Amino acid sequence: MDSIGNIFKITSFGESHGAVVGCIISGFPAGVSIHIEEIQEAVNKRKTNQYEYSSSRHEEDIVEILSGLFEGKTLGTPIAIQIKNKNAQAQDYEELKNIYRPNHADYTTAMKYGHRDYRGGGRSSIRVTAPIVAAGDIARQFLQQLISLQVIVYVNQIGNVQIENKYDYTIFEKKNFEIKNNLNCVDDAIAEKMLLELEKVKQQGDTLGGEITCIIKNCPAGLGEPLFDKFQSIIAKAMFTINTVKSLEFGAGRKSIAMKGSEMNDEFNIINKQIVTKTNHSGGIQGGISNGQDIYFFVGFKPISSIQQVQQTVNDKLQETTIQIAGRHDVCAVPRAVSIVSAYTYLSLADMYFMNLPNVK
Amino acid sequence: MDSIGNIFKITSFGESHGAVVGCIISGFPAGVSIHIEEIQEAVNKRKTNQYEYSSSRHEEDIVEILSGLFEGKTLGTPIAIQIKNKNAQAQDYEELKNIYRPNHADYTTAMKYGHRDYRGGGRSSIRVTAPIVAAGDIARQFLQQLISLQVIVYVNQIGNVQIENKYDYTIFEKKNFEIKNNLNCVDDAIAEKMLLELEKVKQQGDTLGGEITCIIKNCPAGLGEPLFDKFQSIIAKAMFTINTVKSLEFGAGRKSIAMKGSEMNDEFNIINKQIVTKTNHSGGIQGGISNGQDIYFFVGFKPISSIQQVQQTVNDKLQETTIQIAGRHDVCAVPRAVSIVSAYTYLSLADMYFMNLPNVK
Amino acid sequence: MDSIGNIFKITSFGESHGAVVGCIISGFPAGVSIHIEEIQEAVNKRKTNQYEYSSSRHEEDIVEILSGLFEGKTLGTPIAIQIKNKNAQAQDYEELKNIYRPNHADYTTAMKYGHRDYRGGGRSSIRVTAPIVAAGDIARQFLQQLISLQVIVYVNQIGNVQIENKYDYTIFEKKNFEIKNNLNCVDDAIAEKMLLELEKVKQQGDTLGGEITCIIKNCPAGLGEPLFDKFQSIIAKAMFTINTVKSLEFGAGRKSIAMKGSEMNDEFNIINKQIVTKTNHSGGIQGGISNGQDIYFFVGFKPISSIQQVQQTVNDKLQETTIQIAGRHDVCAVPRAVSIVSAYTYLSLADMYFMNLPNVK
Amino acid sequence: MDSIGNIFKITSFGESHGAVVGCIISGFPAGVSIHIEEIQEAVNKRKTNQYEYSSSRHEEDIVEILSGLFEGKTLGTPIAIQIKNKNAQAQDYEELKNIYRPNHADYTTAMKYGHRDYRGGGRSSIRVTAPIVAAGDIARQFLQQLISLQVIVYVNQIGNVQIENKYDYTIFEKKNFEIKNNLNCVDDAIAEKMLLELEKVKQQGDTLGGEITCIIKNCPAGLGEPLFDKFQSIIAKAMFTINTVKSLEFGAGRKSIAMKGSEMNDEFNIINKQIVTKTNHSGGIQGGISNGQDIYFFVGFKPISSIQQVQQTVNDKLQETTIQIAGRHDVCAVPRAVSIVSAYTYLSLADMYFMNLPNVK
Repeated sequence: MDSIGNIFKITSFGESHGAVVGCIISGFPAGVSIHIEEIQEAVNKRKTNQYEYSSSRHEEDIVEILSGLFEGKTLGTPIAIQIKNKNAQAQDYEELKNIYRPNHADYTTAMKYGHRDYRGGGRSSIRVTAPIVAAGDIARQFLQQLISLQVIVYVNQIGNVQIENKYDYTIFEKKNFEIKNNLNCVDDAIAEKMLLELEKVKQQGDTLGGEITCIIKNCPAGLGEPLFDKFQSIIAKAMFTINTVKSLEFGAGRKSIAMKGSEMNDEFNIINKQIVTKTNHSGGIQGGISNGQDIYFFVGFKPISSIQQVQQTVNDKLQETTIQIAGRHDVCAVPRAVSIVSAYTYLSLADMYFMNLPNVK
Repeated sequence: MDSIGNIFKITSFGESHGAVVGCIISGFPAGVSIHIEEIQEAVNKRKTNQYEYSSSRHEEDIVEILSGLFEGKTLGTPIAIQIKNKNAQAQDYEELKNIYRPNHADYTTAMKYGHRDYRGGGRSSIRVTAPIVAAGDIARQFLQQLISLQVIVYVNQIGNVQIENKYDYTIFEKKNFEIKNNLNCVDDAIAEKMLLELEKVKQQGDTLGGEITCIIKNCPAGLGEPLFDKFQSIIAKAMFTINTVKSLEFGAGRKSIAMKGSEMNDEFNIINKQIVTKTNHSGGIQGGISNGQDIYFFVGFKPISSIQQVQQTVNDKLQETTIQIAGRHDVCAVPRAVSIVSAYTYLSLADMYFMNLPNVK
Repeated sequence: MDSIGNIFKITSFGESHGAVVGCIISGFPAGVSIHIEEIQEAVNKRKTNQYEYSSSRHEEDIVEILSGLFEGKTLGTPIAIQIKNKNAQAQDYEELKNIYRPNHADYTTAMKYGHRDYRGGGRSSIRVTAPIVAAGDIARQFLQQLISLQVIVYVNQIGNVQIENKYDYTIFEKKNFEIKNNLNCVDDAIAEKMLLELEKVKQQGDTLGGEITCIIKNCPAGLGEPLFDKFQSIIAKAMFTINTVKSLEFGAGRKSIAMKGSEMNDEFNIINKQIVTKTNHSGGIQGGISNGQDIYFFVGFKPISSIQQVQQTVNDKLQETTIQIAGRHDVCAVPRAVSIVSAYTYLSLADMYFMNLPNVK
Repeated sequence: MDSIGNIFKITSFGESHGAVVGCIISGFPAGVSIHIEEIQEAVNKRKTNQYEYSSSRHEEDIVEILSGLFEGKTLGTPIAIQIKNKNAQAQDYEELKNIYRPNHADYTTAMKYGHRDYRGGGRSSIRVTAPIVAAGDIARQFLQQLISLQVIVYVNQIGNVQIENKYDYTIFEKKNFEIKNNLNCVDDAIAEKMLLELEKVKQQGDTLGGEITCIIKNCPAGLGEPLFDKFQSIIAKAMFTINTVKSLEFGAGRKSIAMKGSEMNDEFNIINKQIVTKTNHSGGIQGGISNGQDIYFFVGFKPISSIQQVQQTVNDKLQETTIQIAGRHDVCAVPRAVSIVSAYTYLSLADMYFMNLPNVK
């Protein structure tokens, strides 16, 4: 239950305000060169305080690799990753000890476990994804040494502000998906509108959700299993582990509900002696298996729960009360979440790669 | 890779045109009374030919329990379920032997495995879900003997025709979610419009998608794990194993992207000495764990791929060609898919129930 | 709990007196030629009634492959194997319904599950290994198409009668491990003594145990994992699933307890530009990983429990009583068990082969 | 591959001469009081330098619990255990960089992984069991809060010196299995002979093996699964993960090979309204499931490989050479291994306990 992946497995540990957060990578082959500075860079991108509307909890997030690496190469043994929690201010949470914050995991954790660490979300904190992002970069380095695939991730919507037609990403592809703003939005003009919206909502002590586009380019055909471990099942399982994710669409997604089969079907043709599809409504996956075309999906996030306004709630003595959350919280976590979406995508791809190994001639 | 579930596991086997399709249930306790006629009833609901717009492949779909049951009760040993393929008309597929049907799994299966069973989708056929539906009913019988939870599933959209506000199901709850039409649509008036749409599309030799609402009532608090096996992750993994599913939303889902935190947050209060939420935008799940409120989610299906029109495609000799699919296929599979959505939901719930056992006092 | 193997998995189902016994093979690649007649032959060798001192339950044991094979080659999808129970004489067991036979699983099954199938051992019957033997032959066929390894299995002891020095098998290797007797004993002269012993014990209505030697020749170096899935751990887990197995030794085994390190250590040298060991006390495994030398181990079986003598026992009403087991039972099951030891060895090897794939350059 | 256990899982990480060794415990319920000082005590018992004939590598072995514990109780989240490697003297190993030590994992690790950490056994070092022993004590504390079972472990043989009849432990039970010597031998007089033997062998620069008895008292009936996860299979898998273990016997073990069924069978009778067995040759397990009687088994260890004598060997350039191992090594590791045998037994029991939960009424 603390692991994800079938063959390339990640086992996570740590709570938000414990000593460390970390994870173990299992199933990784020996002899792969790993660049720690690139891992650190990936983790830095995830960090809070990257832009004005993120939490003010400052963590250095130094990635430590405790095992599995020797002289710059993997040993084939488990890779243990650890990031220390340094800036944990538990006192912020003392008054929340017996109160259940609305939409947080406080109440459900209490119902499930009885005993809980009330400091800052404990195990349910998004902080546990920091070492996952590190693991994701290890998966990326491995895959990119073998195959030239690339995961592209950007924000397409924050609150009500969205890019024009999220399903058609070709306009941004022409510009190499270049991002020039702190919000990780692919469209600079839209990003400015998002900033205005964020400023307004910040003043209200409120929060906003958003949506992220993820595109996998150059994914080889044959990844994903025909029934339970379909490509989209593996991705979906991973994406819905991310806090506040509430929706997911693959390819034409929700749009396809109202399309006819004749509009939806991606006819095949031959270009340069390669089988390709003329359109790509199915998002590069057919029957749960990649077909060599671009894979793309959309991950929707609800607004985060830690608003600054007074809210009605209850405590563990079954009394009604009110709460106003202090602490250091994001207005919108979506721009930071691109790192997490990217990491889980690379981790999923690595797992599918290993699952498919017996079939590779 | 052929199994789903962590503790309550389903291992599937069989191809569309092989001798049988079946599955094995593992991790099921002894002494549970199982009514085979109820299982059969569940499988019958899934069958083709339930309504006019479904495939004309007639299968009796007699459920055989080969092991794990003795004198009407489970033995605690694996329960093997088998359904024979009787009406498999392989000759329908002979001419498709070397051609890749657009949007089918033909091409990706060939890329992954090399050797493939070209008869009717093989392993990728929706037919493999028949024994899964049987297994789902066993999970249902087990859960309903222990806890009073209930899974309600209905069609909310076919093609462009949809019920008014899918997120607010209270209007239908007042009528006990009663279904009076073959399309399994919760709104009778809308169902009539859907039928008109289906008739029109059938004439065109085309197909339609749709969306299904799933509601879990009386789900106990505490199901789902805090990180990787979140309630929504387990459901998502299962739902995306269903052919043609392209989108999934939990609770306020895509609507929540544009909501503010103050609108989204479900404040707690006390009713009858019970902690409940005033609203339920989070769909009964917080931090990946059920909170005792209704759980609800929406599963979106693209139109099925087997249209009757001529399509451009290619064969395995890398030649462009055209294809017109004969065979016996649905115009819209969504009304039948309610059985599958329901089955996977019960299976997921059973798995979460067992995963949570060590924490139950 | 009903599966064995990490990547190449076997999921078993069926009871002794149910409709069928069977298993599902998962994780097997596509395009492998499988000869069904060879599988049948392997299962036939396991069957009762191969020699005079085995059970008189006559089962045809026709192996049916229900899925995963198409035109003689694997599809990469799960391979379902089924063997029908035809000669199940449940009436033999009616009087044992409430009585716990000494050393059988009757009592422990009742304690664990409450509800039990009292007919002939149910799930605990050795009969469930019939489809495992079939699966083992599929593993054998696969491995022998890839690498030239070979598993050699023979009886080295029955009751008090044993071959001279079981640890030194070179004398029998010189004769190609040729077996010329029904007892699967590698030494013909000893086999004759064993037959005398068996005859004597049969007259007494008693039973005998024995020991089996298993040798793996041409096993490539690198199989087995350094910690938990050591080569010997995987083999040990499998061997101790076999009913009546009570001991296991690898290489010099129990003899090594009294050896000094200087006697035990297998020094390396170079022969024909290959690294080999001068001796092989470690049995071809070092640090849990195969070293390319012969692997060998010894599996010890206690006498089977179904003796024909009157025994003291109890019933499920907590009353003391006596029992005399009728039914059809072996005097000694060890000669038949060679098939099972061989099958589990091939299955274990296949699993280790797939686990090691990521490391193969 | 880096985990052991089905539900109560241990995931290990770390190399002998890396920064740390550690493990993650998954599947542990919340609210269990854990005493860290007891864990530390268990780990101290395992440490080197407990007696004169053990390695002189001095490690403090301070157990750090990094997650999963809060205010002295478990959180239901993964428990991360870490022990720092402080006294790693890598220079001892510099000259062994390219040489394969006989019977060590050097050669097989090189064959499997190519790239290897040549310092002190890397992943194959017995040092990785230190955190496992800590995890085992957590399992012990949990089980002993629930059920009164007890694991008793002692040395019964070192080299040629052994206690009189290892199968009959009642003589020592009468003395409460009291141990009064550094060798963890249950018989004080025999321990003195063992010391003489060890002294002699130490002078020769040689090493000795031995055997450990493990007894589980008050194990509830019903643990273990009927087929693949038999009680003995789970124990066997665990025991053979311990370096240098070469043999394992349950109950009458190898002695039972030469017993008749009528001698072997443990007849049932009623004592104090409880079903018990008159004898216990089957070692408390029938059909893979515990029967409530004492469980006992014997774990045999070959002598350790690091002898001080000159040995013939080869290097990675395929040249023959000689080696004389310096470093700090045990003469006999068996007295220290009692901690490891005990830990794996508690871990196995905890896993079986959780596997059996669905069947507990």
